[in-house]
Amino acid sequence: MPSDGALEVGIGDDAAVVRVPDGRVVATTDLLVEGRHFRCDWSGPADIGAKAAAQNLADVAAMGAIPRTILVGLACPGDLAVDWVLDMMSGIVAECGRTRASIAGGDVTAADTIMLGITALGELDGRKAVTRAGARPGDQVAVCGRLGWSATGLALLEAGQSDESDPDVAALVAAHRRPQPPYDAGPAAAVAGATAMIDVSDGLLADLGHVAEASGVSIDIQMESVPVDTEVLAGARLLEADPVDWILTGGEDHALAATFPSGSALPAGWQAIGSVREGSGVTVDGAARNGPLGWDHFR
Amino acid sequence: MPSDGALEVGIGDDAAVVRVPDGRVVATTDLLVEGRHFRCDWSGPADIGAKAAAQNLADVAAMGAIPRTILVGLACPGDLAVDWVLDMMSGIVAECGRTRASIAGGDVTAADTIMLGITALGELDGRKAVTRAGARPGDQVAVCGRLGWSATGLALLEAGQSDESDPDVAALVAAHRRPQPPYDAGPAAAVAGATAMIDVSDGLLADLGHVAEASGVSIDIQMESVPVDTEVLAGARLLEADPVDWILTGGEDHALAATFPSGSALPAGWQAIGSVREGSGVTVDGAARNGPLGWDHFR
Repeated sequence: MPSDGALEVGIGDDAAVVRVPDGRVVATTDLLVEGRHFRCDWSGPADIGAKAAAQNLADVAAMGAIPRTILVGLACPGDLAVDWVLDMMSGIVAECGRTRASIAGGDVTAADTIMLGITALGELDGRKAVTRAGARPGDQVAVCGRLGWSATGLALLEAGQSDESDPDVAALVAAHRRPQPPYDAGPAAAVAGATAMIDVSDGLLADLGHVAEASGVSIDIQMESVPVDTEVLAGARLLEADPVDWILTGGEDHALAATFPSGSALPAGWQAIGSVREGSGVTVDGAARNGPLGWDHFR
Repeated sequence: MPSDGALEVGIGDDAAVVRVPDGRVVATTDLLVEGRHFRCDWSGPADIGAKAAAQNLADVAAMGAIPRTILVGLACPGDLAVDWVLDMMSGIVAECGRTRASIAGGDVTAADTIMLGITALGELDGRKAVTRAGARPGDQVAVCGRLGWSATGLALLEAGQSDESDPDVAALVAAHRRPQPPYDAGPAAAVAGATAMIDVSDGLLADLGHVAEASGVSIDIQMESVPVDTEVLAGARLLEADPVDWILTGGEDHALAATFPSGSALPAGWQAIGSVREGSGVTVDGAARNGPLGWDHFR
């Protein structure tokens, strides 16, 4: 396990001690359950570990914070191969390495199915946290990171069309197995004055809906401004499907969405896709979108 | 949900922001699985919540830290009664209230069985963390809190002898359902100069074994000094059993065990039970104890 200067006490004691010099710690936790959040036949243990880490690290970045460390809880059957666990941990370590986070500790216990409980901690370097609640009418809405990749990759897996000799298919399936959140874009957005931010875990429209609700505003997306990557288009062609749903309602890529003051320059990698208005709810090109907006954990 | 000054951002955003003025956060996480760590027929939801919180808050206290906040992950079947969840949360809130901790956030997801992932965060108020590794030959060994209560209560439940009109039985069963860790005794021990500390979750001998191993010392317990509470004796009489095993190897009461410099005064509530020596391992009255020393999660 990697360690670093953020850890005063690491793995092996009752608790870890993590340095957060500005006196505030950003903390988030998620549970991932086999068969719900991952399938062992579609994803290897390293991918499962990386994805579990990614979704928590992205939540830290979405506050404008720098991920510093994670705690890993693992519940699993007693006959699970040790190699599976080691590979899963190697995936967590690799994902933490993408954002220079360490592993501070955790817990292992027995259960009938595999479950991961991940907690990520981060620090704000003295900045104000960027919550979901600060968007104001007139602000720009922008995104950074992938949209629709994971959902298209999942659709390919579900359709049995995961021939990974096709580079687009391989990229989309890999994106489903192991998202690539743009961690550094979170603190960069905070420095650039972002007024609200969220990580896109439930789907772009659903998560912008959370921002709209928390901020007491409405958000309108201009579809022509939303990034449509060539890989997603290729996957949609293969499945003879319309990629718009995957882009607007697919979760799990852990892109970041944020609002910025009108006229302010966006940081590198961020793309303006709409604007904040008076009112409530999310519209696309001025119109409400029918159908489910994103992922419901109990659906 | 209670909130307090420790929370700059609480429930409802991508992550919480918790104030830890000395720039270090103590962090620990545990997973609890239905059928392994709790049984819904023996414990009600409020007890399950309280116990889950207690075991994490006790880990924070065992570092000499003050618990400040917890994060609650809940995985459960979609048809679990909402009242069950609300009662479980009320137990978590009540236990947090015993140590003035707040609830900073969490996660809810679907699963076939109920699982809880709890993360507790605390602060050290500028003190050094008390790890397992600081015990030195000559130190006193002391405990604070209950020993054997939870194990005796469990034995009564397993034997079907849980007639709670008997006040001793009621107290022991209640102790199994809802441990009473002496949270304030952790920081008090740190202030008093404790050299090593651990929370008794696996059993007194097993957990002192962890201290001995981490510190590179041996620990000897004087059995006549170990507190044997009248309730535990009453339960043992009822079951015609020897209570010593429950006292020495029963976990889950979350007493605190610590080492203190020779001759130093112990804080209120702490009782000396032995001494630290050169060597390795744990002995009772100078002799190794046969049989399992405590709880193995995969046994």
